[in-house]
Amino acid sequence: MTIKNKQVLLANRPHGWVQESDFNIVETDVPALKDGEVLVKNLYLSLDPYMRGRMNEGKSYAASSQLNEVMVGGTVGVVVESKNPNFQVDDTVLGYFGWQNYGVSDGKGLNKVSVSSQIPASAYLGVMGMPGLTAWVGLISIGQPKAGETVVVSAASGAVGSVVGQLAKAHGCHVVGIAGGKAKCDYVVNELGFDACVDYKAGHLVEDLTTATPNGIDVYFENVGGEILEAVLDRLNAHARIPLCGFVSQYNETTPHSVRNFGALLINRVKLQGFIVGEHAELFPQAMQELGQLVASGKLKYRETVAEGLDNAPRAFIGMLKGENLGKQLVKLA
Amino acid sequence: MTIKNKQVLLANRPHGWVQESDFNIVETDVPALKDGEVLVKNLYLSLDPYMRGRMNEGKSYAASSQLNEVMVGGTVGVVVESKNPNFQVDDTVLGYFGWQNYGVSDGKGLNKVSVSSQIPASAYLGVMGMPGLTAWVGLISIGQPKAGETVVVSAASGAVGSVVGQLAKAHGCHVVGIAGGKAKCDYVVNELGFDACVDYKAGHLVEDLTTATPNGIDVYFENVGGEILEAVLDRLNAHARIPLCGFVSQYNETTPHSVRNFGALLINRVKLQGFIVGEHAELFPQAMQELGQLVASGKLKYRETVAEGLDNAPRAFIGMLKGENLGKQLVKLA
Repeated sequence: MTIKNKQVLLANRPHGWVQESDFNIVETDVPALKDGEVLVKNLYLSLDPYMRGRMNEGKSYAASSQLNEVMVGGTVGVVVESKNPNFQVDDTVLGYFGWQNYGVSDGKGLNKVSVSSQIPASAYLGVMGMPGLTAWVGLISIGQPKAGETVVVSAASGAVGSVVGQLAKAHGCHVVGIAGGKAKCDYVVNELGFDACVDYKAGHLVEDLTTATPNGIDVYFENVGGEILEAVLDRLNAHARIPLCGFVSQYNETTPHSVRNFGALLINRVKLQGFIVGEHAELFPQAMQELGQLVASGKLKYRETVAEGLDNAPRAFIGMLKGENLGKQLVKLA
Repeated sequence: MTIKNKQVLLANRPHGWVQESDFNIVETDVPALKDGEVLVKNLYLSLDPYMRGRMNEGKSYAASSQLNEVMVGGTVGVVVESKNPNFQVDDTVLGYFGWQNYGVSDGKGLNKVSVSSQIPASAYLGVMGMPGLTAWVGLISIGQPKAGETVVVSAASGAVGSVVGQLAKAHGCHVVGIAGGKAKCDYVVNELGFDACVDYKAGHLVEDLTTATPNGIDVYFENVGGEILEAVLDRLNAHARIPLCGFVSQYNETTPHSVRNFGALLINRVKLQGFIVGEHAELFPQAMQELGQLVASGKLKYRETVAEGLDNAPRAFIGMLKGENLGKQLVKLA
């Protein structure tokens, strides 16, 4: 019996904001497995801001996605057929199969994960996966927060930002989030335990950030860029650190926002470092250990926004880029 | 007999370009020495871009200079009277007496230096002094150049830039300077041994920088900011390092230049660090050893532009900010 697979392809390179018409949804047959291969039925697809960069032609961290190819992305799923001795049917595996219901792998880059009542499969795409590792590597290894310092994180309610803030609290810092809208700000303060949150949509970002950071800013975990970055640069303390993780506010801009106060990096002797998590794999064991302990003990909380079915992935992706999700954006496939 | 001292005071805080009328030159009496004090007759005053920042009211690395106080600055001089057992008449000393012919010190921050035929007193304000140490700390400690990498330095013919380039050559790098005018470019290539130099005044900065850096840029030692910074950001390789030392192109601008391509720091996973040399004193012994060996062996060359007499210091300072000097700008006092 041939299994039907559904896939989302990149149909057009967007100019400015992504449109649903930039994607093309197709059905194909799952090919017969060769020796050494594994067939995985994907349970969840992760949607992440970095994917926007892959849709462009130009230089970004990694090669562009090709037109008419499956959109890339992290997935968690179950093995439904195996001709590889390292994997058995019903194993839960973390893979990088992209926007499709099934994936075939030779086992490389496929990792078995341990699902429990405390750590469900979807967590491996979020708090225990790439976003959680990104938060840990950026904050702990680059940001080097010390107890009593002020840590600010933008996109604070997102999959990365929410972990950054809770990790910083666990390290004894004064933590201020920046997020869009009252609901997100209430969430990070009341549910995640941040000390404060600035709603950048409220119209007085500079004043509110000043009020929330009376002792200035020592670590800024940067996810958004643009005017929020400028507002933070004006509040930096001497020897501040900036892990530069993303610029989500800029990904759909045809003309990037020019930064007016770059000189703050000089005046304050700032350390800034751009990074992508995949280049810091040597830190993953240490990171997974700390994240796992915090999740299992209930100290690291997370939420998921889940779209149902692959057909809804393009709309959910566009919504995430506009900030409509709360916490980790997933697509439930099976 | 009372000794007459001449001093240059800050008369006005400049708005935009510095004017000679922003300074006031006065004569005062040198006070009688108290126990523990030393009277130094300054031989040379160092003029440096950072002094422009001190003339402003606003926040910079250090406190602003006060109106009607002596302009700050490094000096090298000889002890002419001493009531301090650690210093004797005729000792050559490096101090921070500022823009004046004489200085009185309790000995703190005053350092005896060893003058020889290979290393004259003035060198302790340049290649063996603050600019040389700045070059070493920024390039070696922050830039971490590896043999074969491409190092670019702006203000390449200046007191800091000229040492940066020669140090990078000594470490096996491909070295490209950026300087204003053919004379400066000829100097850094023909006399200092840089591999290439881009004349930013020639009118095709981007094209010339591209030609001079066929393998991209791994380390950028930043002294100037503005459009030169933007041109370099577009040429960075993955994992480039940027020691951020100065923004001399911006110090006299009333509206700073906005940086259009900040995102290059993210895309290329760049490490950028602003620094001031005084905060890295633990590295000075190692730096002085390497600089001293290179100077004594003739491998580290330098030039000085020397103004005669304190009356000419304001004009020389303004000239330096406009790039009229070649190498280290000094004022000969005695």
